[in-house]
Amino acid sequence: MVESVEDVQHEKLTPDELRDAWPVLDSEERLEGFHLLPREEAEDFFLELSSRGQASVLQGMPARERRAWVRLMPPDDVADLLGEFSAEERNELCCLLDDSTRREVNALLAYEEDEAGGLMNPRFARVRPEMTVEEAIRYVRRQAPHLETIYYVYVLDNEQRLLGVVSFRELLLAPGDKPVREVMHEDVITVPEELDQEAVARVIAQHDILAVPVVDAEKRVKGIVTVDDVVDVVETEATEDIQKIGGTAALDAPYLQTSIVQMVKKRAGWLAVLFVGELFTASAMSRYQGELQKALVLSLFIPLIISSGGNSGSQASTLVIRAMALDQVRLRDWWRVVRRELSSGLVLGLILAAIGALRVVVWQALFHSVPHDAYPLIALTVAFSLIGVVTWGTLTGAVLPLVLRALRFDPASASAPFVATLVDVFGLVIYFNVAQLMLAGKLL
Amino acid sequence: MVESVEDVQHEKLTPDELRDAWPVLDSEERLEGFHLLPREEAEDFFLELSSRGQASVLQGMPARERRAWVRLMPPDDVADLLGEFSAEERNELCCLLDDSTRREVNALLAYEEDEAGGLMNPRFARVRPEMTVEEAIRYVRRQAPHLETIYYVYVLDNEQRLLGVVSFRELLLAPGDKPVREVMHEDVITVPEELDQEAVARVIAQHDILAVPVVDAEKRVKGIVTVDDVVDVVETEATEDIQKIGGTAALDAPYLQTSIVQMVKKRAGWLAVLFVGELFTASAMSRYQGELQKALVLSLFIPLIISSGGNSGSQASTLVIRAMALDQVRLRDWWRVVRRELSSGLVLGLILAAIGALRVVVWQALFHSVPHDAYPLIALTVAFSLIGVVTWGTLTGAVLPLVLRALRFDPASASAPFVATLVDVFGLVIYFNVAQLMLAGKLL
Repeated sequence: MVESVEDVQHEKLTPDELRDAWPVLDSEERLEGFHLLPREEAEDFFLELSSRGQASVLQGMPARERRAWVRLMPPDDVADLLGEFSAEERNELCCLLDDSTRREVNALLAYEEDEAGGLMNPRFARVRPEMTVEEAIRYVRRQAPHLETIYYVYVLDNEQRLLGVVSFRELLLAPGDKPVREVMHEDVITVPEELDQEAVARVIAQHDILAVPVVDAEKRVKGIVTVDDVVDVVETEATEDIQKIGGTAALDAPYLQTSIVQMVKKRAGWLAVLFVGELFTASAMSRYQGELQKALVLSLFIPLIISSGGNSGSQASTLVIRAMALDQVRLRDWWRVVRRELSSGLVLGLILAAIGALRVVVWQALFHSVPHDAYPLIALTVAFSLIGVVTWGTLTGAVLPLVLRALRFDPASASAPFVATLVDVFGLVIYFNVAQLMLAGKLL
Repeated sequence: MVESVEDVQHEKLTPDELRDAWPVLDSEERLEGFHLLPREEAEDFFLELSSRGQASVLQGMPARERRAWVRLMPPDDVADLLGEFSAEERNELCCLLDDSTRREVNALLAYEEDEAGGLMNPRFARVRPEMTVEEAIRYVRRQAPHLETIYYVYVLDNEQRLLGVVSFRELLLAPGDKPVREVMHEDVITVPEELDQEAVARVIAQHDILAVPVVDAEKRVKGIVTVDDVVDVVETEATEDIQKIGGTAALDAPYLQTSIVQMVKKRAGWLAVLFVGELFTASAMSRYQGELQKALVLSLFIPLIISSGGNSGSQASTLVIRAMALDQVRLRDWWRVVRRELSSGLVLGLILAAIGALRVVVWQALFHSVPHDAYPLIALTVAFSLIGVVTWGTLTGAVLPLVLRALRFDPASASAPFVATLVDVFGLVIYFNVAQLMLAGKLL
């Protein structure tokens, strides 16, 4: 394990070695390692880093050295980078840029980081509709040095409004004297500036395109979002959802780079909320002390019953949350979800009830752990309670994300622990009520 | 809500309308809707569908109609499509292909669907190192009609071994009489044929590249994986992980398109396993019936204590599972994870202990629910138990995914419900042992 810079101070360092060690180096060691790379490789390495990583390299550098590195970066990456610095440092960094880049960066900073405008690159290949194909190819070749991609060439009118798109490959294949207007596609997929980045990712993934133009209300093209930006978005959004489903706030940073104080903060909030929720189980339990006094045997199955509800609820909520994130389930589908989960819950409950009843019967045969005349009733109590609790848990788990969405909260907040907590209290109520029905006059 | 084909039988249908209705249409309705699209839009729509969606369209078509549609598809998509059909239908479909595509498809079918070889497109732009830049551009233009992308041009020797790569944009910018050898990059990022698709996605995302060549042991290029294939992979893998974390088997299909029978099958297995695990709580409880008999008040806090362990365990396991999926935590980092989670667990335990003790004290003041002389001891029992249970839960949740990885199982199987179940039994043991220590001679 490479844990300090000593390990990476060879004569020569490869980018892969540095990439491997990167997460465990502090910012000084990172800079040292970075300086050990040959210049061209250092440039590639720098451009591949996350904004956070680029910031950690730049922070260690003297100001005069920074200019060359910042000028390597396309404007959308500079805009992201600035987000990592304080307002004061941000101004200093902006001064290092050339005028046109600074204008582009400032325009980008007006957008939220997580919307299409904040994700886009303002530099893209553009041509006029009246150009011939050969003229367009020559024109794009002249723009190419400043562009991230020339894969798609956008056809704009005099007011920068989008008329169509043609791939560079199609230009190469078309007859050279045809006007661009005749080879372009007019039905261009676009996204509005303020579209959420997750939705932008979905558009790109769904249409299998390599870039999508971002347009304002007048259909003027402001920039393009490329698919490589979107891979990161899909991964980041999935990570946030997973962390929420697990019952923590999103970490916003790699696990090992989150300080323990940060980590506890992100987790303590939800854990405390869940704990306060669980306190109601104590209140519920106190209502049933009389029953327990008379039939202590009921206590045996309390953890079993409530956790079965929690587990089935976790399953249902996780499935529905993910399906909603992928747009496979929308709010208007709620009734179909309820029907499906009601049947699934009942079947699952029946399966567990059968196993549970079997357990009581077998244990009775082996250990006689329950008063003899009551054990068929205990078995039935456990079985009926399981059917009720599992059905209830499944239904709660499925409906809760829909309710949260309807109230404009994030459905992913209906985490497994949250559902389990909600279900626990009701699980106890169901269990003891079934017991009262089954055992009244016998044990109770 | 568009729930049947009647709603979509307008004079003319737009692709967006069909896409909206798609998930809720049966396969006959899909075909009808599909036939309502203008031919060119139908082609685009067809190519954007998932393999499953394409299969559902083709299945409804008469065989003579199928040929035109299958021939639209690039070989890697055809290979995926065949996976949706039975062996017999597969042969029929293969007969519809032209000879060269059939050979390519057969080569692709030799790979697993979820490795680099199964994901790649065997058609890519290739040139020889001794060509001049102008020759190379002309040569790529001739290949372009058969290629998905010409963004990267790969430089191969006579044995198809990879010598370097140059982007088409760089070719356009280079002096036309230079040999390709002098403008190409020699340090090409490649992936081996059998690399898992998740790792391929990570390589592409990390290096911000639009495609990566797949090479065999002799460095011969077999195909390329493009970034648009990878967006789907990232999303699919995240979905599978999320579903596993929620304690179900991966659904492999959109939520609303999974039949209830399938749904129950995917869920019942894990739920039954967890239930059998939970049965141990009943055994644990039966060991402590004596204590409960003497101090029934202990029963009040059973759900609270065990669920606190489960919740903190869910948090820890979810964080570690996701960090491992993103390669932020590797097996060799286990000691760092243990140290972090031990401290986090202790702090979180202390926080919940404080809230828990406060609850006992306040309730006592309000309701006198506990025998008067014992309540400070009960409060301490609850507090110490919470510290122990939360620390134990956190540690178990964090270590379990690492253990699963070490045993070559999928870490994501350490689902929230699985951890909660494991922790429940130990939670009871901790609670009653603390109670024995604290209350011996008083209540017990």
